[in-house]
Amino acid sequence: MSEDQKETGQKNTGKQRAGISRRGLIGAAGAAVATGVAGYAAHSIVSTPESQATDTTGPVEFYGEHQAGITTPVQDRLHFATFDLTTTKRDELISLLKKWTAAAALITAGRDIGQYGAMNGPAQAPPEDTGEAVGLPPARLTLTIGFGTSLFVDAKGNDRFGLADRRPAALVDLPHFIGDNLDPARSGGDIAIQACSDDPQVAVHAIRNLARIGFGTTSVRYSQLGFGRTSSTSRAQTTPRNLFGFKDGTNNLKLEDTAKLEDQLWVQQEDGPEWMVGGAYLVSRRIRMMIETWDRTSLSEQEGIVGRGKGTGAPLGKADEFDAIDFEAKGSDGELKVATEAHVRLAHPSFNNGAELLRRGYNFVDGSDGLGRLDAGLFFLAYQRDPRKQFIPVQRQLARSDVMNEYIRHVGSGIFACPPGVQTGSFWGEKLFV
Amino acid sequence: MSEDQKETGQKNTGKQRAGISRRGLIGAAGAAVATGVAGYAAHSIVSTPESQATDTTGPVEFYGEHQAGITTPVQDRLHFATFDLTTTKRDELISLLKKWTAAAALITAGRDIGQYGAMNGPAQAPPEDTGEAVGLPPARLTLTIGFGTSLFVDAKGNDRFGLADRRPAALVDLPHFIGDNLDPARSGGDIAIQACSDDPQVAVHAIRNLARIGFGTTSVRYSQLGFGRTSSTSRAQTTPRNLFGFKDGTNNLKLEDTAKLEDQLWVQQEDGPEWMVGGAYLVSRRIRMMIETWDRTSLSEQEGIVGRGKGTGAPLGKADEFDAIDFEAKGSDGELKVATEAHVRLAHPSFNNGAELLRRGYNFVDGSDGLGRLDAGLFFLAYQRDPRKQFIPVQRQLARSDVMNEYIRHVGSGIFACPPGVQTGSFWGEKLFV
Repeated sequence: MSEDQKETGQKNTGKQRAGISRRGLIGAAGAAVATGVAGYAAHSIVSTPESQATDTTGPVEFYGEHQAGITTPVQDRLHFATFDLTTTKRDELISLLKKWTAAAALITAGRDIGQYGAMNGPAQAPPEDTGEAVGLPPARLTLTIGFGTSLFVDAKGNDRFGLADRRPAALVDLPHFIGDNLDPARSGGDIAIQACSDDPQVAVHAIRNLARIGFGTTSVRYSQLGFGRTSSTSRAQTTPRNLFGFKDGTNNLKLEDTAKLEDQLWVQQEDGPEWMVGGAYLVSRRIRMMIETWDRTSLSEQEGIVGRGKGTGAPLGKADEFDAIDFEAKGSDGELKVATEAHVRLAHPSFNNGAELLRRGYNFVDGSDGLGRLDAGLFFLAYQRDPRKQFIPVQRQLARSDVMNEYIRHVGSGIFACPPGVQTGSFWGEKLFV
Repeated sequence: MSEDQKETGQKNTGKQRAGISRRGLIGAAGAAVATGVAGYAAHSIVSTPESQATDTTGPVEFYGEHQAGITTPVQDRLHFATFDLTTTKRDELISLLKKWTAAAALITAGRDIGQYGAMNGPAQAPPEDTGEAVGLPPARLTLTIGFGTSLFVDAKGNDRFGLADRRPAALVDLPHFIGDNLDPARSGGDIAIQACSDDPQVAVHAIRNLARIGFGTTSVRYSQLGFGRTSSTSRAQTTPRNLFGFKDGTNNLKLEDTAKLEDQLWVQQEDGPEWMVGGAYLVSRRIRMMIETWDRTSLSEQEGIVGRGKGTGAPLGKADEFDAIDFEAKGSDGELKVATEAHVRLAHPSFNNGAELLRRGYNFVDGSDGLGRLDAGLFFLAYQRDPRKQFIPVQRQLARSDVMNEYIRHVGSGIFACPPGVQTGSFWGEKLFV
C-alpha cells in the first residue's frame, strides 16, 4: 500500500476508506477507476446484522466498539491462521499492526490493498495486491485479531516486546485436558487472525495478503480452512449441521441476547486490563472427528451420545429443536431420556455454573490421513469473557465424561486475547502499547 | 441403502428416483415425508446449462450420453478423491459400482441415500446417510467417475479383475516430466471420483457417503478439496482467477463448442474401445504454487511469464480478455510482446498441433507447509479425447520451457478413463464388464 493510501485510510471515517474497489474495476475503465473512486457507492452500504444473515455479498463494517467477526452472523467459510513474529523489535510489531489494520479496513470493504495491475502502479514493482479477489464482492469478510500468550512471554520466558506485565490474567495457558493429543505445529502462535467470509477465495485472499505484508516480520505458523459453519450467532440464521450429521449450536449465544453478551462475552471494565475492555478471549481447538467409526454407530447410540434427535435436532423426548431440554425426564424404561453423560447435558450452562460460549466453528476436511480415513472434523472457535470460568471448566468436564470422546480427538489448540474494536485513526490493539 | 431403494433407483427413470428429499424434510413432517415423495417436485426440475451458470442450488441431471461434471458449467467447489480397491473379487467391484451409481443418482438429485433419522429407519442400525447435507439443496452436485491404470493392471503386474485386455490404449502411464516432484500418496488410485458442487458441504457429503458405501471393498487413497474454480466451461460463466491473481481458462473448451468437443473431448467410435465411446480421459495434477515467491515478482515479470495482463486478462498488446493472441506482434523495443517462453504461447493449440483440453481445475490451500508458507496452488483437472495427443505433448513442452516453472511444482498426478454417461437401469462403467 502506498503511503498516501495509508494516510487516507486512517484519516477518513470508516465509510470513506481509500483503496480500489474490486468490482468497480470490472466493466469500468480509465481515469476514474485509477483514482480508486469509481464504483465505490455501489457497495459502500454496510449491511445490518439482519440483512447479513441473507445477503452474502455485502461488506461488514470494520470499525466499531467490538471487533467484527465475533457476533457477526457466522459466514459460511473460514481461513484461520496464526503467525509467529520473527522480529523482536517492539516498533516493528507496532508498525505491522498498523499496516495490517489499514489493509484489513480496505479488504473488508471489498477493496484491494493497493495496485495489482499496471493501470495504477509501477509495473517494475511487485503488485501490492495479489489479485485473486479482483471482481469478487466483499462477501461479508471479517478479520478478527487475537494475541497469543507467547506475544507476552515466549516459550523461553523472554519478554520480547516489553509486554509481559500487560498480559491479562484471563489469558492463561490452557491446561492439559484428558485425551488431548495436540500437535505443536497446529497449536499456539503469537498472533491469530480469523478471516470469515461467504466466499472462500475472499477469505484466502485476505490471509495471504496480510501474510505478505508481514514478510520479514512474521511467518505463518499454521493455517486452517473451514468450509461450513457449525454455529449460528443470530436468530436470523438456521442451525447448520456438523460432520456427525447433527445440528450444532442450537443454544449458542446469539447477537440478539445483548444483556447476556455483556455477561458472557465482552470483557468488562471490572475485569480489566483496560486495553481488553470490549474485547473477548478466543479458544481454538482443532477437533478431529473419527467419522468412519461414527458412521458405523447406530442411530440410537448417536442420538444418545449427543442427547438430541438427528433429524429434528430436538432434545431427546421433545419435538422441536428449540424446546427446552428436560434433564429429569425418564422414558418408560425408567432411564433418563438425556443420559448422565450425554454431550448436551455436560456442556449445558445449568451444569457449568451458568457458563456459556459464543461458538463459531467450522467443518473441515484436510484430505486423508494415510490410513484411508478422511482427515475431517470441527475447527472449534469459541469467544468468551473469561476462559478460566468458561471454556476451561466446561472442557474439563467434557474431557472427563463425554461419551462423544470415543469419536473425537483434540489435535490442535490456541488461546488468544482479542482486543476491542478499532476506532478510525487507531489500529488493532493500540491500547496495549500505550 | 435398503434393497428396495436400490431397486427403485434402478428401475425408475432418471426423473423419478427414490430416496428422501433433503429439503422436503425441513418444515414438512409426518407420513408423506417418510414415504420419500414429499417435497420432490420442488427441485426435481433439472436445470439447463444456461441456468446452471447462475442458479447455484438446483440439481444437474445424472443420467445421459456423457457423464455430468465434465462440460457442466464449472461449480465453485471440489471434493476429489481416489480409491484403492481392497477386494480382488470382480463381483465385488461390480457390486460396488452398482451401489455407487444408485447412490450417486440420489445424492445428485438432492436426496439422501437412505434414512438418517428414526422416522424412516431402524434406530438400532447405523444411519444409511451420514446426515450433514440434510436441509441443503442439490447445489448442482455432479459425481464423475474414472478408472485408473491400476484397475486394469496393478503395480505388481496383477490383473486382479480380469480387465487387463480391456485397458484403453490411450490410458497410458504418464511419463516423467522435467521437474516432476510427485508424492505417491497423492498420485494414482484404482478409481477416481470428482464431486463438484456450489456448496462444499454437499460435495464433502457425497464423497464421504460413497467412501462409506465402499467400506470393506475400497479405501480412500487421497482426497483433495478445492475452493475456487479456475476455469469456465460455458460462455455463460465469467473467467475466474487463480492464486497467481490471473484470469485462468479464457480459451478453455466450452460446452457451446459442440463440434470441437467431439474433436477434442469425447472418445469416438473410431478411437475405441467400445466401452469408452462417449467418455473422456482425465488427467489430474496437484500443482503447488510458490505464491510467496510469486508475490515478490514484479508485475511486468508476472505478466511476461503468463503472456496476459493481470488486470484485464487480455493478451499482451491487446485490450480485451477475449481478443485473439497475436504471437507475432513486437513492441517498440523490437521484442515479441508475447515472449517465446510465455505460458500462453507454449500452451496454445497453435503451438501444440491443435491440441486443446477441457480444464476444470480448482484453487486449493491446505494449511501451511512447516516453513511458514501456504500449501497452496492449483488442483488441475483436464478432460480430453486422447492424452497421448493432448496432455502429454503439451505438458512436455511446458515442463521443458515454461518460465512459470520457477513458481510451480507438480506434486501429485493421476490419469483416469472416464466412461460415458449412465443410462437408467445401467451403472457406471457397465460396458467394461460385458
